[in-house]
Amino acid sequence: MSEFSNITIIGLGLIGSSIARAVREYLPDVNVVGFDADEDIRTRAGSLGFCHQIAETAGASVAAADLIILCVPVGKMGVVAADIAADLPETAIISDVGSSKASVAKAILKAIPSANLVPAHPVSGTEKSGPEAGFATLFKDRWCIITPLADTDETAVKKVSAFWEALGSNIEIMEIEHHDMVLAITSHLPHLIAYSIVGTASDLEDVTRSEVIKYSAGGFRDFTRIAASDPTMWRDVFLANKDAVLEMLQRFSEDLSALQRAIRWDKGDDLHELFTKTRAVRRRIIEEGQDDAAPDFGRSHD
Amino acid sequence: MSEFSNITIIGLGLIGSSIARAVREYLPDVNVVGFDADEDIRTRAGSLGFCHQIAETAGASVAAADLIILCVPVGKMGVVAADIAADLPETAIISDVGSSKASVAKAILKAIPSANLVPAHPVSGTEKSGPEAGFATLFKDRWCIITPLADTDETAVKKVSAFWEALGSNIEIMEIEHHDMVLAITSHLPHLIAYSIVGTASDLEDVTRSEVIKYSAGGFRDFTRIAASDPTMWRDVFLANKDAVLEMLQRFSEDLSALQRAIRWDKGDDLHELFTKTRAVRRRIIEEGQDDAAPDFGRSHD
Repeated sequence: MSEFSNITIIGLGLIGSSIARAVREYLPDVNVVGFDADEDIRTRAGSLGFCHQIAETAGASVAAADLIILCVPVGKMGVVAADIAADLPETAIISDVGSSKASVAKAILKAIPSANLVPAHPVSGTEKSGPEAGFATLFKDRWCIITPLADTDETAVKKVSAFWEALGSNIEIMEIEHHDMVLAITSHLPHLIAYSIVGTASDLEDVTRSEVIKYSAGGFRDFTRIAASDPTMWRDVFLANKDAVLEMLQRFSEDLSALQRAIRWDKGDDLHELFTKTRAVRRRIIEEGQDDAAPDFGRSHD
Repeated sequence: MSEFSNITIIGLGLIGSSIARAVREYLPDVNVVGFDADEDIRTRAGSLGFCHQIAETAGASVAAADLIILCVPVGKMGVVAADIAADLPETAIISDVGSSKASVAKAILKAIPSANLVPAHPVSGTEKSGPEAGFATLFKDRWCIITPLADTDETAVKKVSAFWEALGSNIEIMEIEHHDMVLAITSHLPHLIAYSIVGTASDLEDVTRSEVIKYSAGGFRDFTRIAASDPTMWRDVFLANKDAVLEMLQRFSEDLSALQRAIRWDKGDDLHELFTKTRAVRRRIIEEGQDDAAPDFGRSHD
């Protein structure tokens, strides 16, 4: 049983198409309408068949909806909200899946001041993009963080929570500014660093790119997975969560400088102490079921 | 058919115990003697049974060997070489598996000036440590880099190459200083950055460690794998390959500062351009069989 009868998903990439597939799988009575501003993606989504209907305009897609989920890059949320404003049913709840919440909520409310908005963030994904990359179990056993604003309707929060629980997620309610700080360290900074080191490795004069690729099993390849994530999505995230990202980046740079100094001055004990501490963090992530324990991420050695 | 009849492995952790297991599997006629300075590890290795004999002293372990492979942390290579110097058969070949080659070769040759040394580096491993963590296929389809010195015996290089090929590795012969530069970027810098960001995330005041662990699926957990690697091994690697590591770290810091500036000044196009380039690097790593194509490292979503 769902709290909603007609769900509209705008933006049919990895996340949007996974939500559609999950609704079809876990909430089979719900009607799913999809829309994407890109005509090619609309066509591909139509062939893949994970929505009951693909609408031809943003406005048409929301006309009968009781829940609309915006799954576009965070820099586009305001634009899409403006596109649907005129056709939005008065009682419909709007939600989104942006990885940065405060600036997105602001942009949506600027376009639709009366919006019944419940900002949400499913903390899951893969490095793949596009409607072909989605799958119904993407959100299973992962956290979905809901970040109500001071005046957000509590009933709407409950309904959106129940929706994500039906898709297999665990719910956490979090203050919106705190969310942006937590994600800056757990997600945005790791992506930024991964993009950066892969860039550094590509630009060397003394070591060829072929060598970097050939010997990447020494550690480098672990960074390339998240550095293969969607460029538009991530450009928008860094700009939308600028303050928290720059703050975390500053702290990281200071810590890295301290490590650099420890190496330069042969402070082996300082290095050993840090490396022992980080090992314990990995252990807890595995204990709490947030990663697999298989060595080497379970890569095949056969 | 092996080029060697009696192989001694000193240091019975992940790599040493994997070599022993691989020899038993792929070169069943070869006798394998093992030694570890740690009595507890000798006992555990004895129970695991991957060597024909476990010797009680370093000297006794090499007395009948025609190939000795040193698998200890790079900071210990010189000490171990000194320990075996008196008992070393004159015709025996010494090799090692250190991740940093120039300083290791220097340390071994200082202890045994007449050593018939063939420095080698199998580019493979997991984040696990100890004799229990090893397995016979660890080196399969991975590169083994051999870094001869100017006066290294060519026949010995051929024999050591054939040995690693028998274990399933592909061989690359590389100039020793160049090796240390290539590994600084493909392996040492990634480990240093992973240790550093996991440290930064552990030390925040506004975001708790529990939150970091809970939401690590957003990207952070990818870094924690290599930040769980053996602390002693990695402390030694950074100190042993100090110059190349500091050089790569300097380049990385400059590139990261440029990204920081692009975010601060809303240079979205610059970000997008870099993020598109890094995606292509991932594609090549997968095409060349250095990583699996499965999204999310093949982690289970069911």
